Amino acid sequence: MIVQGKLYGVGVGPGDPELLTLKAVKVLKQVDYICVPQTGKDKESLAFSIISKEIDCAGRIIKLYFPMTYKQPDLNQAWDKAAIKMSKELKKGKDLAFITIGDPLLYSTYIYILNSLNKLLVNLRVETVPGISSINACTASCNLPLAENDENIALLSKVDENELEDIFNIFDNVVVMKLSRNYQQVYELLERMELKDNAVIISRCGLEREIHIRDLDSLKVDEIEYLSLLISKQGNCL
Amino acid sequence: MIVQGKLYGVGVGPGDPELLTLKAVKVLKQVDYICVPQTGKDKESLAFSIISKEIDCAGRIIKLYFPMTYKQPDLNQAWDKAAIKMSKELKKGKDLAFITIGDPLLYSTYIYILNSLNKLLVNLRVETVPGISSINACTASCNLPLAENDENIALLSKVDENELEDIFNIFDNVVVMKLSRNYQQVYELLERMELKDNAVIISRCGLEREIHIRDLDSLKVDEIEYLSLLISKQGNCL
Repeated sequence: MIVQGKLYGVGVGPGDPELLTLKAVKVLKQVDYICVPQTGKDKESLAFSIISKEIDCAGRIIKLYFPMTYKQPDLNQAWDKAAIKMSKELKKGKDLAFITIGDPLLYSTYIYILNSLNKLLVNLRVETVPGISSINACTASCNLPLAENDENIALLSKVDENELEDIFNIFDNVVVMKLSRNYQQVYELLERMELKDNAVIISRCGLEREIHIRDLDSLKVDEIEYLSLLISKQGNCL
Repeated sequence: MIVQGKLYGVGVGPGDPELLTLKAVKVLKQVDYICVPQTGKDKESLAFSIISKEIDCAGRIIKLYFPMTYKQPDLNQAWDKAAIKMSKELKKGKDLAFITIGDPLLYSTYIYILNSLNKLLVNLRVETVPGISSINACTASCNLPLAENDENIALLSKVDENELEDIFNIFDNVVVMKLSRNYQQVYELLERMELKDNAVIISRCGLEREIHIRDLDSLKVDEIEYLSLLISKQGNCL
């Protein structure tokens, strides 16, 4: 009887290949196949570009396509299709690594793949290898404390205008992810609460053309890049 | 004229030496001295035990003592004393790495050392190397999504009973750090909100005797270990 292969969910960090962990490198060298998420057949994968300088992937790549869409049926279909492809190899006893930028369990396609695979396979053998998240990479890049001592932190992926002011009142430190879709509301609130000077926007952390913006007024709402986040602090800014 | 040395704040992850990044290893091999925080002269440093399997530190250690206390004057004195010791070497042109468990800018002594050094040295040359935080390591260890899609996350270091219920109402995902001091209030709220079954406590992640507790009632409040956190989720628990 063939023993089912093992799935590794491997976080490759936000951009700089040196932010790969020793464990990520070890796993990526060992596995039979590396599953690479792409948004289209001709599109470059950021996760792949991060590992390709450290790992020889030749002959070991399984490309998986996930459309850039918010349409849930299209997404479900893509996740299930990828999971079927992966489950076939796992059933053959092959070990797979699914690579993901940042950390695998923080806003990543890996979470949906895990869900789909758990439906397909009984007793899925799985190990998640954590990765440096964009949040930790951004604060490092600015030498900016994310939080200290008794301070609490809010990490927001989607802002709700009924809750946003409460959140800024409760939390000293607020991180707004997926900034391009959230910036308008956040900017208006920061202005109203006179917190604009305590915020920084970081785009493309660890990649070419990384930028830090401290003067929020120098930026138009539609100029926010896709890989951007905002950190607002009411306390220590160093 | 001697060029001032450079300070690296290096996150070494929560426990497993394999969660060191390639960059952390490179920096720790290169620097003249590695600054090791300890709670006492005879106390073992967890951060040092993480790096000692990967890095030859012989002759390059600077031990720094930080008392386990909440007394602010004692802490300030320890931070300033450490910063003076470090600044002397930086002025001689020596490069230093200050190691810290988890991530350097998330609840770490490194933040206070940076503050003290910035007061002592003009134009401190500093680079922070992010580390895997205990949060990302714990979710990986449980294969538990920290958040997905539109979900938001609250990271709490100290809970305030006037805000706690609001926070649990606003956020799908709540992480309670420094659990030993916060557990009583959190437990009572989880019970009241019928959320006990959607929470997990992880202690000593990546270390010997790592434990995951899903049955909160199996644990007494005073049995929570120092290195513990709780993750409460209202959504997908896989």
